[in-house]
Amino acid sequence: MSKKAVVLLSGGLDSATVLAIARHQGYEAYCLSLDYHQRHRAELDAAQQIVTALGAAMHRTAQLDLAMFGGSALTDASIAVPEMPSEGIPITYVPARNTIMLSLALAWAEVLEAQDIFIGVNALDYSGYPDCRGEYVRAFQDMANLATKSAIEGRTITIHAPLIDMTKAQIVTQGVALGVDYSLTVSCYQADERGRACGVCDSCRLRRQGFVAAGLADPTRYVETANFAE
Amino acid sequence: MSKKAVVLLSGGLDSATVLAIARHQGYEAYCLSLDYHQRHRAELDAAQQIVTALGAAMHRTAQLDLAMFGGSALTDASIAVPEMPSEGIPITYVPARNTIMLSLALAWAEVLEAQDIFIGVNALDYSGYPDCRGEYVRAFQDMANLATKSAIEGRTITIHAPLIDMTKAQIVTQGVALGVDYSLTVSCYQADERGRACGVCDSCRLRRQGFVAAGLADPTRYVETANFAE
Repeated sequence: MSKKAVVLLSGGLDSATVLAIARHQGYEAYCLSLDYHQRHRAELDAAQQIVTALGAAMHRTAQLDLAMFGGSALTDASIAVPEMPSEGIPITYVPARNTIMLSLALAWAEVLEAQDIFIGVNALDYSGYPDCRGEYVRAFQDMANLATKSAIEGRTITIHAPLIDMTKAQIVTQGVALGVDYSLTVSCYQADERGRACGVCDSCRLRRQGFVAAGLADPTRYVETANFAE
Repeated sequence: MSKKAVVLLSGGLDSATVLAIARHQGYEAYCLSLDYHQRHRAELDAAQQIVTALGAAMHRTAQLDLAMFGGSALTDASIAVPEMPSEGIPITYVPARNTIMLSLALAWAEVLEAQDIFIGVNALDYSGYPDCRGEYVRAFQDMANLATKSAIEGRTITIHAPLIDMTKAQIVTQGVALGVDYSLTVSCYQADERGRACGVCDSCRLRRQGFVAAGLADPTRYVETANFAE
């Protein structure tokens, strides 16, 4: 009998890879996306296409307007997406986003009686976001073990972050081996409405370097004006 | 200079008391309610009236449809609210609700640069919900200390649960001393659209026993057909 897992699916490269990994491990995937009024809404269309390509038992998109809080280039249209690497944690950080997403996944997992949640965070080729680190995921796990009725009754829910210690090159190599079509995924923070990438934001840069380092062709669809000068 | 705090405000007795405590401690209150498509939506109107009565710098109501997950008598219209005490954690438990609410409070606090969050959980006269216990709140705190950019930069956010070890009688006694008008608050899980209480659900029962034990008149507005037979 296959096991159920909730898979957080943004529509980007990492979460598509995680869905492929969960499927490869035999999980029945319940994919959860979040429409948080993000600038790069094209990733939500990408999530739907990824589900169609890789297969899932169900795909739901929760609606939660994080623009009501603002404070990030991804939720406040008046803050530009940086096109050069910056010092410290960049302004594309969305306050508490992964905590909110994992909380929603926890709710759904409990109702589904699923004992596994997958999230595509990684802490090597990343932007330095605090909620993408292993110690954060472990602390969320400890909290989740106390938060739910199912945990009290002995059915704890495990948070899997299979990419946590992988380089972007390792991630795309594994994804390609599992049949992920990365041309469907959208990582760009300012993708246009057709999902075409700018090529210069932090997310595009990390993604492109991953394909280069892996020796793989980059299947990303870029806007015609993309300028990759380093 | 007054300090900012995010105060989770459901519109019930406990969170109204917590708002009064935070105000009494000199905090500028940023009240956050959650419209999660709860059965007792009248509590959201109550929250607005409580804010008017006690004062706040701002009041926002986030919209998040937890009925999409279901699994609780408070979010699934097909599951009745129990009118007798039951064994174990009752079906009015909403999976991961406090984790979701605290996550939203964490996001807003970070954007506001507030270093304090107040929540009205208590673990004495309560329904046994796992996410109302002190050990849960402490685990959320530990996770929050790793989750945010502000924590990484040295500005941790403290979760205050001032009611955690208080009886319901102590809570209403303190609230009355601080000027809380409990007739404005709605605790009932199946309050009617005017906010009138059934008198028999778990939440009504705990509330009424609190006023009795405190020797205070119960100002709750009940439906005309309320039957308090124990």
